[in-house]
Amino acid sequence: MSRPRHLVVAQSGGPTCVINNTLRGILDAARDSDRIGTVYGACHGIEGVLKEELLDLTAQPAEEIALLRFTPVAGSIGTCRYKLKANQQEDFERVIEVFRAHEVGYFLCIGGNDSMDTADKIAQLAQQRGLELVAVGVPKTIDNDVGDSQFKLIDHTPGYGSVAKYWLHAVQNANEENAGSSPADPVLVMQAMGRKIGFIPAAARLADPRREMPLQIYLAEKPCAMEQLADQVNDQLRRSGRCLVVISEGFDVGKLGEVKDAFGHTSFGASQMTVAQVVVNYLNRVGLAAKGAARGNVPGTDQRHSMAYASTVDLDEAYCVGQKALELAARGESGYMATLLRNPGPVYSVRYEKAPLGEVANSERKFPAEWIAPDGHDVTDGFLRYARPLVGEDMVSLPMIDGRQRMTRLQPIHAAQKLPPYVPQGDRRK
Amino acid sequence: MSRPRHLVVAQSGGPTCVINNTLRGILDAARDSDRIGTVYGACHGIEGVLKEELLDLTAQPAEEIALLRFTPVAGSIGTCRYKLKANQQEDFERVIEVFRAHEVGYFLCIGGNDSMDTADKIAQLAQQRGLELVAVGVPKTIDNDVGDSQFKLIDHTPGYGSVAKYWLHAVQNANEENAGSSPADPVLVMQAMGRKIGFIPAAARLADPRREMPLQIYLAEKPCAMEQLADQVNDQLRRSGRCLVVISEGFDVGKLGEVKDAFGHTSFGASQMTVAQVVVNYLNRVGLAAKGAARGNVPGTDQRHSMAYASTVDLDEAYCVGQKALELAARGESGYMATLLRNPGPVYSVRYEKAPLGEVANSERKFPAEWIAPDGHDVTDGFLRYARPLVGEDMVSLPMIDGRQRMTRLQPIHAAQKLPPYVPQGDRRK
Repeated sequence: MSRPRHLVVAQSGGPTCVINNTLRGILDAARDSDRIGTVYGACHGIEGVLKEELLDLTAQPAEEIALLRFTPVAGSIGTCRYKLKANQQEDFERVIEVFRAHEVGYFLCIGGNDSMDTADKIAQLAQQRGLELVAVGVPKTIDNDVGDSQFKLIDHTPGYGSVAKYWLHAVQNANEENAGSSPADPVLVMQAMGRKIGFIPAAARLADPRREMPLQIYLAEKPCAMEQLADQVNDQLRRSGRCLVVISEGFDVGKLGEVKDAFGHTSFGASQMTVAQVVVNYLNRVGLAAKGAARGNVPGTDQRHSMAYASTVDLDEAYCVGQKALELAARGESGYMATLLRNPGPVYSVRYEKAPLGEVANSERKFPAEWIAPDGHDVTDGFLRYARPLVGEDMVSLPMIDGRQRMTRLQPIHAAQKLPPYVPQGDRRK
Repeated sequence: MSRPRHLVVAQSGGPTCVINNTLRGILDAARDSDRIGTVYGACHGIEGVLKEELLDLTAQPAEEIALLRFTPVAGSIGTCRYKLKANQQEDFERVIEVFRAHEVGYFLCIGGNDSMDTADKIAQLAQQRGLELVAVGVPKTIDNDVGDSQFKLIDHTPGYGSVAKYWLHAVQNANEENAGSSPADPVLVMQAMGRKIGFIPAAARLADPRREMPLQIYLAEKPCAMEQLADQVNDQLRRSGRCLVVISEGFDVGKLGEVKDAFGHTSFGASQMTVAQVVVNYLNRVGLAAKGAARGNVPGTDQRHSMAYASTVDLDEAYCVGQKALELAARGESGYMATLLRNPGPVYSVRYEKAPLGEVANSERKFPAEWIAPDGHDVTDGFLRYARPLVGEDMVSLPMIDGRQRMTRLQPIHAAQKLPPYVPQGDRRK
């Protein structure tokens, strides 16, 4: 039998509460495999490969690896948004060169659709260059936008269940405050992530499956004019005296979203006025059908890194997806993504399988139109049946030391660099 | 012995995670007192008294009362921001009339400085009108602004420890994401409540008592020009590659906070651009000393109603303050606020005492200047020694049913109305 070759794992895209539990699943399974040598974490994703910054994960203390379950995004490994574009041929060649220098035979890429595409391209190029490399994708997004709309390639993405649970609690608690203090602040607008796809705002409905709260949910998929939104909120105020609005950050607010400050500077990109603020300003300007004012919450990154709200189901599945990816790698199944599929029947269970990376990368999941309620500002029970099992039953029990969360602290044990320094192509413009 | 008279409890001002545990303390202690008859909750605070909307709390199921510990703001009782102004004589007379009609001998007012003043005024007027009424104040604010700056009237207000714990976790988790994804988003600006007083943003330091994070804290008490703030953030970026900014919602951003939308409408009041957004926009416009952009989180009301982050110490103290208030009432100690004072010595403990309402109402607590660090964007270890015990050690264990929090649901059992309807003076303008 050939001697074991090493493994590089890279994380890409936005963080989630459970991405590190996938990493833990990979590490635990790698320890049990005689085909896998050292497991390296690419620091800040594919950039770490390009820069030959490889953290030795096999050498880390067992306790720190165990704590990955309770650590959102490992600061020491990190993720990246650097994209290996198809025309960045030098970058691809550099990846191959680094893998060859470090005797890397396995590449696991944790991320969304782009990452699956990257893993696929690297696997193919490695073969062309005579490097035996097994590349396997490991799914992760809070947006739940990996794969197909029929849920055949993957049922849901690790990371989604936890942000869904975040919204369940955010809305449940906000409803208490809104009910208790509605005479002063009858309208609370809460902005949810998911620029293009509505799984995250939809999860607000999990807080109130029997529709007892005055809750309206606006997805980017179902835009409406601000006048109509205000009418619907005011109708709710007449009926209930108060209203909770959950709205996608990608909801189209048109020209109302363009702002100038007092000096006439227009803001762009990350600095635009938030959708929640636009809605709050609009509602307060046209007037509410109740005393008091509208207010807005924009939890931002908090919704994807609040470990206290991690779903235990999501954590467990993320771990198993990591194990499955390692199993695929060790078996030499290059070009696949580890996936989880829901078993039929009324009792929720999943099985872990594989899906071709090419198919995943070329799919585009959409929020099923039939899960948007006829009134346009709610989701259906069909969505609830899909999403409910993903948030689990209980709260996660966080390890605490001295009143603070005890999180993984990885030691800076890096692979010795063997190649000359390299500046990634995407960084050369400056 | 005279027959027991009834008790009315009212909540006022912004909600907290622990206000209902104070209510539970009152109810549990009232059950053990033969001087107290029925306990009524005034629906939405003093407005409920004026409108004679009195919820019978004594008649509620024991299980629902027990669950008050895990319920932020009881939707069925509610709080109010309605103020009994000194010149609203009719309102005051109405309160007396309602109390007389319902044989109310005890009035407990849970709230901040204004509420203490209201309780005091009502007690005095009742005496003038020949109604025997014991009025006792029960402190509650997230801002920790009740009482004096020397911490002699009260050490800290129930509610503060829980919002402090919220910020501890928010910053700890945000730091993981910031460290992990700093190449794309090196600056995260987080906006904390506390318009005038800095105890809430200061609590961010609890996440990092050894100052290992690139964390800057800006209090309203220590304003600086936006240029200086940007310089300090960019210095941090040069040193650390990333920066976490926690800023008070009351931080003075001057004219930068005035915005017009695309139609030239200027926004006011609750609809102004948030401080976090102003800072994010400014930083992105002047440019960061690192790749990537600044982003902002505005958790808003989430920081004061997220039950999962309630401090167990805060919960326990809030309960005891409620018990103490009932004890004072039953003993006839009108005109006092139940208070908690810290015992001297290195081991944290408190004792429950009384403070004259008049003194409390006339005090104005400020954030101690000596707790602001010399660099102007941090707090000192002196603050940490004060605040650390208040957040406790462990996470609260929330009761869950079917994946959701199980919260109190009070039954609509109201005292029969005995008086003609009344419109509060403050509501008559319309």
